[in-house]
Amino acid sequence: MPNPPSRVPTVGMIGAGQLARMTQPAAIALGVGLRLLAETTTDSAALVTPDVVVGDYRNLDDLAGFTAGCDVVTFDHEHVPLEHVETLVASGARVFPGPQALPYVQDKIRMRERLGALGLPVPAWRSVESAAEVAEFGEAYGWPVVAKAASGGYDGKGVWVLRSLGEATALLGRGGVRFYVEQHVAFTRELAALVARSPSGQSVAWPVVETVQDDGICVEVLAPAPSLAPERASEATELALRIAGEFDVVGLLAVELFEVEGGVLVNELAMRPHNSGHWTIDGSVTSQFEQHLRAVLDWPLGDTRARAPFTVMVNLLGGGGVGASDLASRIPDALADGDVRLHLYGKGVRPGRKIGHVTISGDDVADLRTRACRATDLLRGEPA
Amino acid sequence: MPNPPSRVPTVGMIGAGQLARMTQPAAIALGVGLRLLAETTTDSAALVTPDVVVGDYRNLDDLAGFTAGCDVVTFDHEHVPLEHVETLVASGARVFPGPQALPYVQDKIRMRERLGALGLPVPAWRSVESAAEVAEFGEAYGWPVVAKAASGGYDGKGVWVLRSLGEATALLGRGGVRFYVEQHVAFTRELAALVARSPSGQSVAWPVVETVQDDGICVEVLAPAPSLAPERASEATELALRIAGEFDVVGLLAVELFEVEGGVLVNELAMRPHNSGHWTIDGSVTSQFEQHLRAVLDWPLGDTRARAPFTVMVNLLGGGGVGASDLASRIPDALADGDVRLHLYGKGVRPGRKIGHVTISGDDVADLRTRACRATDLLRGEPA
Repeated sequence: MPNPPSRVPTVGMIGAGQLARMTQPAAIALGVGLRLLAETTTDSAALVTPDVVVGDYRNLDDLAGFTAGCDVVTFDHEHVPLEHVETLVASGARVFPGPQALPYVQDKIRMRERLGALGLPVPAWRSVESAAEVAEFGEAYGWPVVAKAASGGYDGKGVWVLRSLGEATALLGRGGVRFYVEQHVAFTRELAALVARSPSGQSVAWPVVETVQDDGICVEVLAPAPSLAPERASEATELALRIAGEFDVVGLLAVELFEVEGGVLVNELAMRPHNSGHWTIDGSVTSQFEQHLRAVLDWPLGDTRARAPFTVMVNLLGGGGVGASDLASRIPDALADGDVRLHLYGKGVRPGRKIGHVTISGDDVADLRTRACRATDLLRGEPA
Repeated sequence: MPNPPSRVPTVGMIGAGQLARMTQPAAIALGVGLRLLAETTTDSAALVTPDVVVGDYRNLDDLAGFTAGCDVVTFDHEHVPLEHVETLVASGARVFPGPQALPYVQDKIRMRERLGALGLPVPAWRSVESAAEVAEFGEAYGWPVVAKAASGGYDGKGVWVLRSLGEATALLGRGGVRFYVEQHVAFTRELAALVARSPSGQSVAWPVVETVQDDGICVEVLAPAPSLAPERASEATELALRIAGEFDVVGLLAVELFEVEGGVLVNELAMRPHNSGHWTIDGSVTSQFEQHLRAVLDWPLGDTRARAPFTVMVNLLGGGGVGASDLASRIPDALADGDVRLHLYGKGVRPGRKIGHVTISGDDVADLRTRACRATDLLRGEPA
């Protein structure tokens, strides 16, 4: 009889969306047990992972029961109430990113304040409680202004472009939401810097990428960002590493940036694997999902080199011709290009929802974009 | 409410060892449902896959019940009784590789006969029923001779090197096993050619690799085989593609070869993902595990290019210092080299058992071998 398998560490992940789903292959390879706190048994990651607990991430009892069985706990999203995380950590649980770091992704006003205090470049901004304050900001920095909810936004939700006092009045009339406004930045393009950091302080950075947004949703990532000046790439990387250190981030940190004349400005932060890093599964020595596991376990971080001159990722969004029943039947069309790497999330389809992505690596970024978009068009049932 | 997820195809795999385990990440990405027929719930793949049926692959009722819920069925091993596969296919199941191909991996005497009839290069051989026949072969081709069981062997099991009539008498005295003998080939090295073939006849081949064996167990794979003459690589590739076509293989085919003066000789065949192809997970555009799924689903096959000049894979075998309780604690040591790609199988440890592997890609094959072996030494608790 063989000896029983070595006891493997169990990493708990709160949330079972596509980020957790893409973590499972990394956990399998590393021999790490991935345990999920899912909302339902049909969540994207719950479909592909045996160790699933169904519970409510807003409920402390559910969180405490889940955490008790895990060596370390991390997140698929940033919506777990901060006070619950503080309670878990006070009772001895290892939770990463921890309660000292999470406020800066749960509350964008705190994030902006802290970045400003550190002297890091952000768009001009202020928190607002009245339409008059919005108008004052608009007069100072020019209309339109961008209004954002301090918490709860993602994929373009929680962001509004306001062109007048009237629009501000309509928005601010909503109760229960804290808003801030910022300058409508005339950026040349959007970039993202992805880094990982471990509890013992090791940090690594992937090449800086260009992200292409459509209506606030990331639709395309070019890795590395084509023709990015080396000093601009260094600036973005150093900025992300500095934020990771200052905020004591453990795990992944994605910093979304505006590239402007003469520099970059921080737009958003995420402390988890991020859409701007999906290219790393196929395009880098170590994927962001494996790296996040290594970081929260305080294992040595893996190499972040790109494995090809360029990797292009294109999101597959629901809507258009993507029906519920016929996506699978279109997969062979998309795979006819033998270089296409397909990643489906097992999610129900609704317009604009991210239900998968494709990546493709090679030398010619224009060609790669054409081919990746053709693959997603074919999956959406649109003419090639 | 989103529309429900698209109905995804379900691929059934009979057997839940490490080959099935490494298939699960590929299934997750493709959005394919992987269903396993496992012997126990703690089989390597059953630990990481939610859809597991426990049953006996030798029992027709278990097989029929399992197959009924799958769109297509394939194998983690070649031990399913052929008559059961024939029954399943006769009842309308899609099973790949099918009953026309399986005999050539289940019965090595039939394999040798068929390869000979096709004029393909094999070592001199004959089936034997008595020690006298072994001795006759030894006198004709020289001692020692290699005796093999016609079926059931793997990883050096079922293979004996016989040096005399006396040793032959002792071996042939065992009942219930059909034997054949072959020439003890003075090969320069061992190679493997890995190809995939779909039901509609598309075929692809990965670069030919060198396999390094120790006591009949594959311990190292160098991809591609260093300094292999292009005409020799073509010969090996064409031979493997020809066998796949002639035997009507669907899925993966690994052809293990002896490189000899002036050519290659076929040693063994496997019709499934194979140890000689584990390097493809990290080292090729499309892994053998994803390709096997694509082939049995009759989806277009993926590109098989190597993603680096060299990828080296080294098996992690139980034994030495690898204890049951301390493997996990040694992982950080192995990962200190940030280029090391780790793959653990979640299996109990016994001497010589394959419990994982590492790969590493780069330019300098000697350096890669040193570093990959250092990682497995560290995992085994041996001095670096």
